[in-house]
Amino acid sequence: MSNNTITAPKGFFSAGIYCGIKASGKPDLAFLTCPTGAKAAAVFTTNKITSAAVQVCKKHVKSPSVYAVVVNSGNANSCTGRKGLNNAIGMCRRTAGLIGAEPHQVLVASTGIIGKQLPMQKINDGIKTAFEKVSSSADAGLAFARAIMTTDTVPKQAVRKIQISGKSVTIAGTTKGAGMIAPNMATTLCFITTDIAISKVLLARALKTAIDVSLNKLTVDGHQSTNDTAIILASGLAENRPITSSCPGYKKFVKVLVDLCDDLARQMALDAEGATRIFKVAIKNAATKADAAKAARAVAEYPLVKCAVNGADANWGRIICAVGSAGVRFNLNKLSCKLGNITVFKNGAPANFEQKEASRVVAQKEHTITINLAAGAYSDFCYGCDLSREYVAINADYHT
Amino acid sequence: MSNNTITAPKGFFSAGIYCGIKASGKPDLAFLTCPTGAKAAAVFTTNKITSAAVQVCKKHVKSPSVYAVVVNSGNANSCTGRKGLNNAIGMCRRTAGLIGAEPHQVLVASTGIIGKQLPMQKINDGIKTAFEKVSSSADAGLAFARAIMTTDTVPKQAVRKIQISGKSVTIAGTTKGAGMIAPNMATTLCFITTDIAISKVLLARALKTAIDVSLNKLTVDGHQSTNDTAIILASGLAENRPITSSCPGYKKFVKVLVDLCDDLARQMALDAEGATRIFKVAIKNAATKADAAKAARAVAEYPLVKCAVNGADANWGRIICAVGSAGVRFNLNKLSCKLGNITVFKNGAPANFEQKEASRVVAQKEHTITINLAAGAYSDFCYGCDLSREYVAINADYHT
Repeated sequence: MSNNTITAPKGFFSAGIYCGIKASGKPDLAFLTCPTGAKAAAVFTTNKITSAAVQVCKKHVKSPSVYAVVVNSGNANSCTGRKGLNNAIGMCRRTAGLIGAEPHQVLVASTGIIGKQLPMQKINDGIKTAFEKVSSSADAGLAFARAIMTTDTVPKQAVRKIQISGKSVTIAGTTKGAGMIAPNMATTLCFITTDIAISKVLLARALKTAIDVSLNKLTVDGHQSTNDTAIILASGLAENRPITSSCPGYKKFVKVLVDLCDDLARQMALDAEGATRIFKVAIKNAATKADAAKAARAVAEYPLVKCAVNGADANWGRIICAVGSAGVRFNLNKLSCKLGNITVFKNGAPANFEQKEASRVVAQKEHTITINLAAGAYSDFCYGCDLSREYVAINADYHT
Repeated sequence: MSNNTITAPKGFFSAGIYCGIKASGKPDLAFLTCPTGAKAAAVFTTNKITSAAVQVCKKHVKSPSVYAVVVNSGNANSCTGRKGLNNAIGMCRRTAGLIGAEPHQVLVASTGIIGKQLPMQKINDGIKTAFEKVSSSADAGLAFARAIMTTDTVPKQAVRKIQISGKSVTIAGTTKGAGMIAPNMATTLCFITTDIAISKVLLARALKTAIDVSLNKLTVDGHQSTNDTAIILASGLAENRPITSSCPGYKKFVKVLVDLCDDLARQMALDAEGATRIFKVAIKNAATKADAAKAARAVAEYPLVKCAVNGADANWGRIICAVGSAGVRFNLNKLSCKLGNITVFKNGAPANFEQKEASRVVAQKEHTITINLAAGAYSDFCYGCDLSREYVAINADYHT
């Protein structure tokens, strides 16, 4: 069977183990290394409060070559002050010592409870154990994907292959949850590996482009955690002609990276806490790109829309209400809304449609809500998931 | 027993009946009249899509004297086009004919399902029945309060008395639901009566001041419905020296009106769909008033905070995360948070506190979350309520 994990691209070795952070005994330490060195790029949370790992990672990602990424789950190392910062640096130092690199050539990420110090003895022991287990097997890639999980119920992985200048290039990624971390917050972590040969500048641009139209289009709670991090490493071992400009090869790479990240985003939405189905809100003919994005997000985040999707109810009234209060321009006399291919609201008035048929659209695992604002030429979209009793159960019953 | 309903101020007569809109058979038509004529003022939803009643009411409230308010529940008369508009005008015309006034001297409000036409025959018959039953009794006032309810579980009423220029002035109010209306949306309706003698301009200013710091500080879903309306009628029969300037009497009136509206807002929050407890988010030392309002709302609307309150969990991590992603200025090294009187986060770091004691604070029917942004001199606040399984049940299980 082919490898669909982050060890699929040439040059990557990984491991995932339990080091003792989580009370559940589930894997909580993930380790990824590229012994030949990789170009690295990353995007981070826009929350003004950032975890120690994010602060350290922002600096280290500037290194021309990165040799490893170390991740712990179960503890966010956030709001932990100077000691927390030293611990994040310590994780890099420990990793660097084992692989024979400099600490600034190691990236780090954390996810879990806020305001508690990391158990550094356990983590240092765990890093050594993980390092000794690294492998380029699919099992090792899957172990990494499992070790970054928190309330996720399934590992999320995707892989893509393309030809660039006659060479086969592989891109693989894994993410953890739009589900909230017990107990404190939603954290999105995303790790992408590829063997493409590409400049650091273009790698960073490609990542930003892809995340902007995938993970950044996904809203579960409407808030960013203090730890959100997406990292891409490129080993360059595919031996394609190195990409150093916006050539067709670059565009091909971006296109498939977008597709991969979109896949991961939808996997995350479907596995959001308590989520049973996801939906895409597509805004057409907005006055500005910002209006389109704002309207899409307003609809995707509106609790009444999320509840209606949970109940498989074709409740266009709630959608139109969300649009009306989103603070965006629209032409009410031309305002229209479709659920899948069924027009439920047209030119500012209710349309005639079969309630049962529309309900079947909403009952699908995924459906699209298309809203025509009739105010301009801009489009944008957003992914949302339903709001279920289970979401509340998960997030109300946990006690700090 | 003293009258604590909207018929308490001199000059008001009301009724509440069932006219046949609601399938449940619960009261759905409310009628209020001031035969001697009243000064009127109102504030409306900021949703760009407004119901027919809101469109009509916006015009009619400009009349120097208003003689009646007619309200139906169970049908929002929203997204109903020209026919809906004619129906809203028809309700005013029918009422005006019965009381001997002009249609533009009658105000109208609706709440309920979106996109369906009103059953005008039933409503016209109902208006006549209600008119024949009007009374200044407390029972009649309560009947009005009940007839505007939708998913509200209890009527919400408040009354206040003050002395102005040696005369006793009474102010009374009733509201309906921050709970969502089956099936489509949250609507807030608020009706306030008073016998104060005051100019129309100052009455309007007083209402806006009071609503801005009460109903407008309450967030359940973060969205405004197409129907939100707050109306105040002043009969002038208290015979105080008419208020025509920002005199001490005016200030006294505003103060008690704010207090009354705050009371009503808290009653609404406690009766929001599925809500079991409410909380006030108080922001201190923000860089601007807008920052203070934005931060308060971000915390009050954050689903994870709402779930934590539902679970009586002193989860400061979620609060701090919401502040961090609210897009407001703060000094992280001085950022602090209190639950009731217990400091849980101080100067950017977790504080030592008794988890059980803090949990007891959150478990109260009402508690205050105080956040010091340490970035300036501005304050603001917002009321929120918890997010429960029942909220989802109510809003997912309903089918249009």
